[in-house]
Parts: sequence; structure tokens; C-alpha cells
Amino acid sequence: VSASRLAHLLGRPPLSGATYSAAEITARGNAVVLLEQRRLPGVETYVTCRTSTEVAWAIRDMVVRGAPAIGIAAAYGLAIASVDESEAGAFLPYLRALGDELVAARPTAVNLAWAVRRMVHAGERVAHAPGPDRFRALCAEAESIHREDVLACRAMGARGAALFGSGVTVLTHCNAGALATGGYGTALGLVRALHHEGKLARVLADETRPYWQGARLTAWELSRDGIPVEVLTDGMAGHFMRRGDVSAVVVGADRVARNGDVANKIGTYGLAVLAKHHGLPFYVVAPDSTLDPETPRGDAIVIEERSSDEVVRVGDKLMVPEGVRARHPAFDVTPRELVTAIITESAVHRPGDGVEVLPAASR
Amino acid sequence: VSASRLAHLLGRPPLSGATYSAAEITARGNAVVLLEQRRLPGVETYVTCRTSTEVAWAIRDMVVRGAPAIGIAAAYGLAIASVDESEAGAFLPYLRALGDELVAARPTAVNLAWAVRRMVHAGERVAHAPGPDRFRALCAEAESIHREDVLACRAMGARGAALFGSGVTVLTHCNAGALATGGYGTALGLVRALHHEGKLARVLADETRPYWQGARLTAWELSRDGIPVEVLTDGMAGHFMRRGDVSAVVVGADRVARNGDVANKIGTYGLAVLAKHHGLPFYVVAPDSTLDPETPRGDAIVIEERSSDEVVRVGDKLMVPEGVRARHPAFDVTPRELVTAIITESAVHRPGDGVEVLPAASR
Repeated sequence: VSASRLAHLLGRPPLSGATYSAAEITARGNAVVLLEQRRLPGVETYVTCRTSTEVAWAIRDMVVRGAPAIGIAAAYGLAIASVDESEAGAFLPYLRALGDELVAARPTAVNLAWAVRRMVHAGERVAHAPGPDRFRALCAEAESIHREDVLACRAMGARGAALFGSGVTVLTHCNAGALATGGYGTALGLVRALHHEGKLARVLADETRPYWQGARLTAWELSRDGIPVEVLTDGMAGHFMRRGDVSAVVVGADRVARNGDVANKIGTYGLAVLAKHHGLPFYVVAPDSTLDPETPRGDAIVIEERSSDEVVRVGDKLMVPEGVRARHPAFDVTPRELVTAIITESAVHRPGDGVEVLPAASR
Repeated sequence: VSASRLAHLLGRPPLSGATYSAAEITARGNAVVLLEQRRLPGVETYVTCRTSTEVAWAIRDMVVRGAPAIGIAAAYGLAIASVDESEAGAFLPYLRALGDELVAARPTAVNLAWAVRRMVHAGERVAHAPGPDRFRALCAEAESIHREDVLACRAMGARGAALFGSGVTVLTHCNAGALATGGYGTALGLVRALHHEGKLARVLADETRPYWQGARLTAWELSRDGIPVEVLTDGMAGHFMRRGDVSAVVVGADRVARNGDVANKIGTYGLAVLAKHHGLPFYVVAPDSTLDPETPRGDAIVIEERSSDEVVRVGDKLMVPEGVRARHPAFDVTPRELVTAIITESAVHRPGDGVEVLPAASR
């Protein structure tokens, strides 16, 4: 049902490779179609954005989330916008302004800035071409970003799965899955590869407060694929590690600094400390587009602070007394000493060795 | 308003020393009055139990929770029941059967068994006295358990606060406060003492999934006392420790084994590992009644497994896809090597030294 609904909305099959997708562009290039992730797992519905600004809002409000997915959504936002400004001299300033608006929607994930930069470069190459050609070129560039991300996820999955034997229980945090990427997923791409190779026992998914990405999204996409998953509260990881029930921690990333420090969803750092304490491997799975050569170390990464309200309310229910506030850093930074390996589509980096972590294009 | 309502229900001021109380007995000894903690912080209402079995249900269903508080509630349950069996030969078997029912309500906290044992011993001393005398003796014993617990909390608070300098930020988990005890609290008793001595900067309270004891209860009782408190999700502790925002972790306990291993709310163990990693003190505050000389080590402690439903539902809202289950160990065990000190009303134990941790009466 949903497969045909999404394909119908798009006028073609989604590029995600699944029956659902975090972000797509219509075949005509006139709208960006985003899975409304805030309504999962109860309702599977899509939001249609007709402008780049609407895409920026959707990113800020977390209709779409996950570092690679918001990069793809932003690229599609610029693609649909490129039809609107046909005057050659105004085109690039217009594209750059919309790009800035998209990048400002969320500060921590570097894929957003990376995708926007790539789209602006594509725009520069065709700035003096006829309007329809520019539009086609930018749609093609955005689709390339999407297709390459899916291929990168599959490559990461294969590369990561090769590091494991059989009977693996993966503990993961947040959602670094198909829903956070163009499709297939980073950390959950590795999980899918383990499952296909018969090596996976089960996934333990942190529920991941305050946005419940583990409970809502990771559980949704894994159970849909028939992959065994159990949900934990965020405080349970240590207990199960101590009992010997965890083989490895596998997470995604929002930004990897040049030295190998990793910014990811709040709670990741605590898992890395626990993994170290229990002698368990801690793997980060992320595409080259998440590696940021411009950021020397983790302490240079801007950590987005979101509102107290997102923590203290669940639906309409206020979970704290009136007048009490919650803290809400959306991400934390895991220092490279705690990272066993960072698995990309092109390499397995061991940042604890002190070697710089750079994307293939910069090496 | 609530002070007078509770006092009105009881026919006298509560023994808790506050305007509210987790567990009280009426002046006439005909009912146990429990604060309905599941409805906090939104609604402050009391449940009246007329039988010991009703008290057992209330303990199992977490109307009342917290190791010392459920011990007191159980003692009161046996006190009100003691009026019902006037035949001397039947009295003790009746009391013991009700005691067993109460102890079975929750397996991990040792205070429950401790309080029931103390009530049965009191019953043994008066088994052949006239019915009204037995009833008065058991009511008096239960009230002694309650009064002693409040005094113990104040002693722990003073003893614990003496370990600190000024400008202290305490990170705590679950609720080890007035609501978890006869009054004043264990971990939060220490917090109250720090506040009164002008040493406290603020409390960071883990929300404590799945029951939200931190968000709902710790925030409620601290904000009521004008003590600065901010709520964190359970995954944030490491982030704030790494930034240097935490002075110490202070928690309560449900059972302390003879060797100093500590069972407490799920998530406590992870905090202990994080505290160790960051060189921060990890303090456990608990009365002598929580120390269990019968349990040699933590691995002998039964960890209560509660239902998946309590994790995956928030109110009526299902947070995971249909068919996905959650794990729900209610407690974890922190090995003594990670415990800086266990603070009781009678001593500061340093279990890392390998010395046995015994209540004053057993030393």
C-alpha cells in the first residue's frame, strides 16, 4: 500500500531502494516528498514541500532527521528552487541564499552544509546555461547525491559486517538507518548486512530520549525487515553489557572531526564510555560526507541546543512540574580514544591510532 | 491546602515532617494513606488502603515506591491488619501470611522484608496479649519504623553534606527523596542538607525512564522546597560530566550486599561507570535497613523484571511499532569498586577498601 502510495506521489519508484523513503523528489522535479517521521511508528504519511524554505522548516522541525537524510532533503530543496530564478545574474545569489537558509536549519550535522556546497558548485557550473538546463542539472546533482548515499550505505554495511563473526548482538542508539539516510542506513546498514550474512542475533535499540528515534524509527524499520529488535531505555545499556549480552555498540554520526572525534545524538558518548569499560568495540558508521576536514577536533563542533519543551512534554502530557526546565543538548562528542573504528564507504579508520580521519577525496 | 487535606485524612499531622507524605497511618489506625505517586506531578491525591492486601497491591503497582517508603507502607499494612485477628493462636500465622504477601509484592528492595520481619517480631512479643493491646503495639512499632527512618534520613543528610565543599552540582537518578522514604529522603536528604548549608549550586535530575521518577517526583519535591533542579534525559549525564558541570553522583539504593555491591534503579550502574571515567565521586545514601547482611554479593540479588508495556507506552500512547517488545529490568547492580562511599545514618562505608558493609546492629 505505502509503496504504491509513495511511488504514486513521486510518479516513479523511490530512489531509497525500499518501499518507503526519508526524502525524495518527484519525477517532474516540482516537489520534495518527505516521510513525516514525527508521526512514526503509528502513521506512515508523507509531507510535500513546494519550496526550499518549506524544506528548511521541515529539517528544523525534524519532519526529516539524520545527517545524510537532511543533506539529501536540502539538495532536493535547492533542485526544486532552481526553476524559480531564470535570470542568469540573480541565479547564484539566489541559490546561495537558499543554501544558507537550509544550513542554518540545524547546525551540528555536516552533511547538510556538504550537500548544499555541492549543489551550489553544480549551480556555478551551469550558471550561464538556459534556465531549463540549469534546473535539469541541479535535479540530476541532487539525485546523484541521493544515489551515491545509498551505494555508500551498502558499501559501509559490507565493510562493517566483515569485522564481525556470528551470533552478534548489536546495541545501537538513535536511528542511523534507512530513515536517516538516502536508504539502507549507516549503523543499520551494517546491521542489515550482518542479518543478510546470517551473523546477527539481535539488535538492542536504545529508545533515545527525547525524540524516541530508537523506539519509533529504528524499531519500525528493523521490524519491517524482519530483523529481531528489542527496545531498551537509555539507562539500560550498562546492565546488559555487564551481563555479557552485547557484542558491540554501532552508531551513526552527525559530524566526524579531522582528528576522529565524533559528534552524534546525545547519549552516544555515555555508550562509548560503557563500551570501553566492558572491553566492547565501539563502531561509528558514516559516509565520507560526514567527515569534516574543516573541523580539527570535537571541541570545535557546535552542539545544537534545542528547547526544554521537547524534553518535558510527551505529546500533550507534561512530565515535570510546572516551572521546572530540562536541559536539551541534541548531540554530544565522543573523543577518538573511545572509538574502535569509523567505517566509511571507502575505509575503516582507527582514530585511536592518532591518524587523521579524512574523506577519500581529501586523502 | 494539601497539608490540611492530608492532616484531615489522617486525623493528625503526618509523621513525614512535610506537608505531604509517601505513607502514613490514620490516627485511629484503621487505614494506610498513600500518596498516589503515579499521578504526580500533575495531581496530588491520596489512596486509602483498608487492608494489608490493598497495601500489597499498591506496592506492586507502584502507587508507593522507594525502598524505605515501601517498608513503611508494609509495616502500616500489618498494623491495620492486626486488629482483624483476635484469636491468639491464629494471630501469628495470619500476620506472617500477610507479611509474605507484602514481601512478594516487589522482590529487590530489602527494606520491605526488613520492615515485615520487624513487625512480625513485634507481633511475636505480644502474641498472647489482649487483641487491643496487640493492635496498639503493632501500630506503635510501625510508627517507630517511620519515625526512625525520618531521623535516619536527617542523619545521613548531615553526614553526607559534610563530605562536600561549596558550589556543588549533584547529579541524581530516580527519586531517593522524601517521596521514597518516611520523609526528607536519602540522596535528596543529602541534597537538602547541602542546600541548607549553602553549599548546593543545583541538582541535575535524570528523568529516569521508564517511570519518570526523576522528572515527576524528584523535580516535584525539590522545586517545592525551592531547591534549583534541572531535568536531564538519561543519556545526557556523560555529556555534562565531560564538560565539568557535575560535582558528584548521589543516589539511593534498594539493597546493599554485604560486600558493598549496590542494587538500585536501572541506569544507576551506567552512572557509576561514567563517574569513575570522569574521576567524580559516586555516593550511595541509604539507611541501615537497606544493608542486607544475608546477601553476600550483588550477583545474589534478584533483579525484578517488569513488563514491556511499562516501557513502550507513555499514558495511552504506544511509542514503538505494534509487535515490538522492550526489555525491562527494574534495577541494576553497581559493583563496590565503583562506589566511593555508602552513607548511612551510622557510618560512611568505603566498600572499595574491601571491608564488609554491615548495619550498625550487626557490626
